[in-house]
Amino acid sequence: MQYPLPIAKLIDNFMKLPGIGEKTATRLAFYTLDMQDKDVEDFSQALIEAKKQIHSCSICGNITDTDPCEICSNTNRDQTIMMVVEQAKDVMAFEQMGEYNGLYHVLHGVLSPMDGIGPEEINIKNLIIRLQKSDEIREVILALNSTPEGESTAMYLGKLIKPSGIKVSRLASGLAVGSDIEYANSITLKRAVQGRISL
Amino acid sequence: MQYPLPIAKLIDNFMKLPGIGEKTATRLAFYTLDMQDKDVEDFSQALIEAKKQIHSCSICGNITDTDPCEICSNTNRDQTIMMVVEQAKDVMAFEQMGEYNGLYHVLHGVLSPMDGIGPEEINIKNLIIRLQKSDEIREVILALNSTPEGESTAMYLGKLIKPSGIKVSRLASGLAVGSDIEYANSITLKRAVQGRISL
Repeated sequence: MQYPLPIAKLIDNFMKLPGIGEKTATRLAFYTLDMQDKDVEDFSQALIEAKKQIHSCSICGNITDTDPCEICSNTNRDQTIMMVVEQAKDVMAFEQMGEYNGLYHVLHGVLSPMDGIGPEEINIKNLIIRLQKSDEIREVILALNSTPEGESTAMYLGKLIKPSGIKVSRLASGLAVGSDIEYANSITLKRAVQGRISL
Repeated sequence: MQYPLPIAKLIDNFMKLPGIGEKTATRLAFYTLDMQDKDVEDFSQALIEAKKQIHSCSICGNITDTDPCEICSNTNRDQTIMMVVEQAKDVMAFEQMGEYNGLYHVLHGVLSPMDGIGPEEINIKNLIIRLQKSDEIREVILALNSTPEGESTAMYLGKLIKPSGIKVSRLASGLAVGSDIEYANSITLKRAVQGRISL
């Protein structure tokens, strides 16, 4: 015996989401059956609307429902500094930090020759054009993940941007605040020692 | 800064699901943005269709898109035995086991006086009516969870059904197959010893 078709379909759809296996998908599908009609309709509509209305900002590549995005069109932001991130989610993480008031550029990925992702496949061309066009930008912060791909992408971009005379920096590596030395890996420890700060 | 409204709404909707917090909801919402248009439309429609088409079988209370459900309308099934379960999902678990060919009755919950759930709040009345109407049913298996509420509901139903002369049984308690005695709790061990089987 199988589940009735409508619920089997719903389970299949939940299973397409990352990190959701058959058991969880079944639990979620059954849960939605017990939800209010209106809540399910809202959910259904939110999926369609997000997919329809959200797109990449034509300037920075951040997700937005306007174009240019809220950040690119905000003239109160510092136009002399730009942070290059991998994903639109990273923009939100820095915005929540609340200390950065400059521009962003979203790469939508990192270089990964093993997966066939070269400079053409990510949003690098637009970055270079933006930097060439602007005579205000003084610094580019490469805020890429501390993964092998993130670091090699940062190296690549650094070499590309530096000749133009713009200052290029990357985020500090070291111990996460609140973490134990005991559990840190040796590369992190090495970075933390290399980047030690005098008191 | 907040996420653009359509994505913020989608995140909120994912957060209404059980076991999904803000971080996971955000990850899922961003994932759906990268999905194919058709997949998102299918997902959206699957939610609405499941909610609209799935209802409880008027006889047994199992979820179904027909009425009566596939099991109740299947005359090849053993009409002399009925398994009483808490949730529709439990029906599927026993069906997947593949050894049981009788009828079901879904309670949609268990007695829980602390939460204000008495016999009127769950599908007990229909169960008694079914048993009274049928002159075929010889045995009722109370396949309720091995929780305090499940066991007290089983006790309650046992007292209610036994006077009619129908045989009432409950599932065996004991060690789960593949589990270690070392990790079993003492009530489980007690049940396993009490229910020991001679070889």
